[in-house]
Amino acid sequence: MTPAQALPAVLEKIDADLDHSLDRLFEFLRIQSISTDPAYKGQCQSAAEHVAKDLSGMGFRTSVRPTAGHPIVVGKGGPRDKGPRVLFYGHYDVQPVDPLDLWEAPPFAPRIATLPDGRKIIVARGACDDKGQVMTFVEACRAFTAVTGQLPLPITMIIEGEEECGSNHLFGFVKDNAQEFKLDLALVCDTSMWDPTTPMVTTSLRGLVYEEVRLTCADRDLHSGLFGGAAHNPLRVLARILAAMHDEDGRVTIPGFYDGVRELPPDIKADLKGLDLTPENFLAEVGLKVPAGERDRMLIEQIATRPTAEINGMIGGYTGEGAKTVIPGQAMAKVSFRLVGAQDPQKIRAAFHAFVRARLPADAKVDFKSFASAPATEIPFENPALAKTRTALAAEWGKKALAIGEGGSIPIVGDFKRVLGMDTIMVGFALDDDRVHSPNEKFDLTSFHKGARSWARILAALAG
Amino acid sequence: MTPAQALPAVLEKIDADLDHSLDRLFEFLRIQSISTDPAYKGQCQSAAEHVAKDLSGMGFRTSVRPTAGHPIVVGKGGPRDKGPRVLFYGHYDVQPVDPLDLWEAPPFAPRIATLPDGRKIIVARGACDDKGQVMTFVEACRAFTAVTGQLPLPITMIIEGEEECGSNHLFGFVKDNAQEFKLDLALVCDTSMWDPTTPMVTTSLRGLVYEEVRLTCADRDLHSGLFGGAAHNPLRVLARILAAMHDEDGRVTIPGFYDGVRELPPDIKADLKGLDLTPENFLAEVGLKVPAGERDRMLIEQIATRPTAEINGMIGGYTGEGAKTVIPGQAMAKVSFRLVGAQDPQKIRAAFHAFVRARLPADAKVDFKSFASAPATEIPFENPALAKTRTALAAEWGKKALAIGEGGSIPIVGDFKRVLGMDTIMVGFALDDDRVHSPNEKFDLTSFHKGARSWARILAALAG
Repeated sequence: MTPAQALPAVLEKIDADLDHSLDRLFEFLRIQSISTDPAYKGQCQSAAEHVAKDLSGMGFRTSVRPTAGHPIVVGKGGPRDKGPRVLFYGHYDVQPVDPLDLWEAPPFAPRIATLPDGRKIIVARGACDDKGQVMTFVEACRAFTAVTGQLPLPITMIIEGEEECGSNHLFGFVKDNAQEFKLDLALVCDTSMWDPTTPMVTTSLRGLVYEEVRLTCADRDLHSGLFGGAAHNPLRVLARILAAMHDEDGRVTIPGFYDGVRELPPDIKADLKGLDLTPENFLAEVGLKVPAGERDRMLIEQIATRPTAEINGMIGGYTGEGAKTVIPGQAMAKVSFRLVGAQDPQKIRAAFHAFVRARLPADAKVDFKSFASAPATEIPFENPALAKTRTALAAEWGKKALAIGEGGSIPIVGDFKRVLGMDTIMVGFALDDDRVHSPNEKFDLTSFHKGARSWARILAALAG
Repeated sequence: MTPAQALPAVLEKIDADLDHSLDRLFEFLRIQSISTDPAYKGQCQSAAEHVAKDLSGMGFRTSVRPTAGHPIVVGKGGPRDKGPRVLFYGHYDVQPVDPLDLWEAPPFAPRIATLPDGRKIIVARGACDDKGQVMTFVEACRAFTAVTGQLPLPITMIIEGEEECGSNHLFGFVKDNAQEFKLDLALVCDTSMWDPTTPMVTTSLRGLVYEEVRLTCADRDLHSGLFGGAAHNPLRVLARILAAMHDEDGRVTIPGFYDGVRELPPDIKADLKGLDLTPENFLAEVGLKVPAGERDRMLIEQIATRPTAEINGMIGGYTGEGAKTVIPGQAMAKVSFRLVGAQDPQKIRAAFHAFVRARLPADAKVDFKSFASAPATEIPFENPALAKTRTALAAEWGKKALAIGEGGSIPIVGDFKRVLGMDTIMVGFALDDDRVHSPNEKFDLTSFHKGARSWARILAALAG
């Protein structure tokens, strides 16, 4: 029986097993695997062991491989004599949960809720990003194994634990074990649908540079009555520097920032225009109305094909209740850049450092902390796996699957291409209202269920 | 025996009683009366009761008068038939202690330490501001009472508990009880020496306007991958607005900000120049070198006679360890203005609000929280009490006492003039290295001891 012949039974198995698959997802979601906060190191280890145990139970040969950070789970299964050999990548770590008081229920106590429009949702930190998405693939594998006794094609899984804090050790791990992971095609489930009824393959991802910048002026906090007017205020200096990163038209002013940014070909630009992404249908649901990016660009360009500079966090001075007349000694900001095309992360980082230093008054010192960086990545439209995947998605959702770029970053996808020579098919089932990285993160029950069915169809199509 | 005749014995009493007076100060310093943080409400009440009990023990008729905030201690004592009748003002509340990890010992466990140069210091939150300073006056009163059986002149004391959070209820209290407090002269001990050997009477104080500004863009935190480039970032908006408050020359750009700011008369300006306040002797000790104020002003003008705008605190987005690619929904800053001359706090506040609103993009909402404000205040050089005070200080310190303006704000001093018609003599013994409002706040033992002796001399001089 070919995978294609087995597919109807596999899909039935997924339907019949939905409740159990939810139980398994909930067990995964209860693990507080916040990778960026050292306090949760043990929970990240637990999440890795949980994944390994689950994969082993389905017949994968698994290992929990240590890194200098959180461990990486590797699982290998499927026939050795058939192709293509695929590498599935996902992550078991999640974002921090603050501000905790905005959660309607504890973030690590997963639950099913019903939205006013009747949609059933799974609510928890990681429900979507990426535990829920990873489990759509795992459940497809499980159903294939249950029905046919084996996976439809050779599958290697890499489930890492540092995606939410920069994938600091994944690149070295993949590079050091290149022979082990150099397969035919990579699959990733960490992206989104175009809308709740329209599936999508993500064909490009923005890159990322993430920097922490800390300014120190006086060697202590000062009384603004005594020193106000005479002492440099690092908050004022930092605000001035960060405000200078954009001009009045929303363009980034850092010299050389746009080096390597390509203009879209006219036909692709026309396609994007045809999507009719409007502020009303994209921004309104988060309470916004007016696109904030470069003034001469369409909204879809701003989020998918143009680079950005953002202040992700900033703190200094007195931020408690009430009034304190202090001139702080220090101020800190976290700044990130989304990269596109051939923008070079190292050059962007250096240009940002130079931009800050050029604006420092004599009395201000700066310290930078650099987090992992990644260039943008693109998948060629000619790869036949792309057409097969789109056809499989169309069969599941009853609608043509879009092929489009996305604004987020998955650093390893670029490495898969550069180090392992593999293209990556990115398919995901997140929706715009999933509150990814925010309080009350959710994943639609439909995304989870039809996501698993979609992967079953894709695996069958790739094996055929 | 006149107060002047009693003075030598009173000074001897202060010397002999120094250890006991330190015990009393330490007991006061152990009370965690942080007024700006509601968590310390009970401790503020305790501090008020502590002061009242101490004053009662010396023969003052005392009361702890409730307000909508922290209570105000009122004490009355001394002969009814002699003048001038003085009103002493101080405060029992202290600043928050954060960042706590920079304290070398717990902030509310007062201790005596020795500096490398041999100076003995009292270390604790409030050691100087204002518990230590208040106790210099109280100990002078105690010694007079012990030696002569009574105070040298009629003294009313107002010790409030909200100076560090804007004196929100003091003004109404004084106004509502104007007949009770309308006396001949106000005395305040909350200012500093010119240097460790040079006493000073403070003849003007900058006013204060303190605002909290909170920007909201999206109704939640957003994933910068999904929304970066399209969603307004309130940190970016806030940084841009606050950076625009100053021009390249350090002048405040808010329209109308300098209305009411007078130029100094040439002779006063010459006096200031003669003080030779340099960056080396003022800024170097806090790790700075270059004055940050208006480029065309002397350093002494920047800190004493010119208005300022400062960012006292700012927070938004992710500020924990590691990297989080979030576009925050909100950002907050605390901004204060030091006022001089006839600048009108209400107009400054309104101009700041208008300045912010004029720079808001369509998708940003702003909320302001206003804290108490005060105009600047000045004391006429002709007041004879000023000359008497300067002579008394000169006798104690063996050096001419300066009469000079100061950069800080004590809001009630302006009200004493406007509402009660009284001038205020401000004498204090703080030093520039006292770390007021900072970790490891201290008060020199000499400041405490000679401060009490100074007040004994001043009271005798005023009574004479």
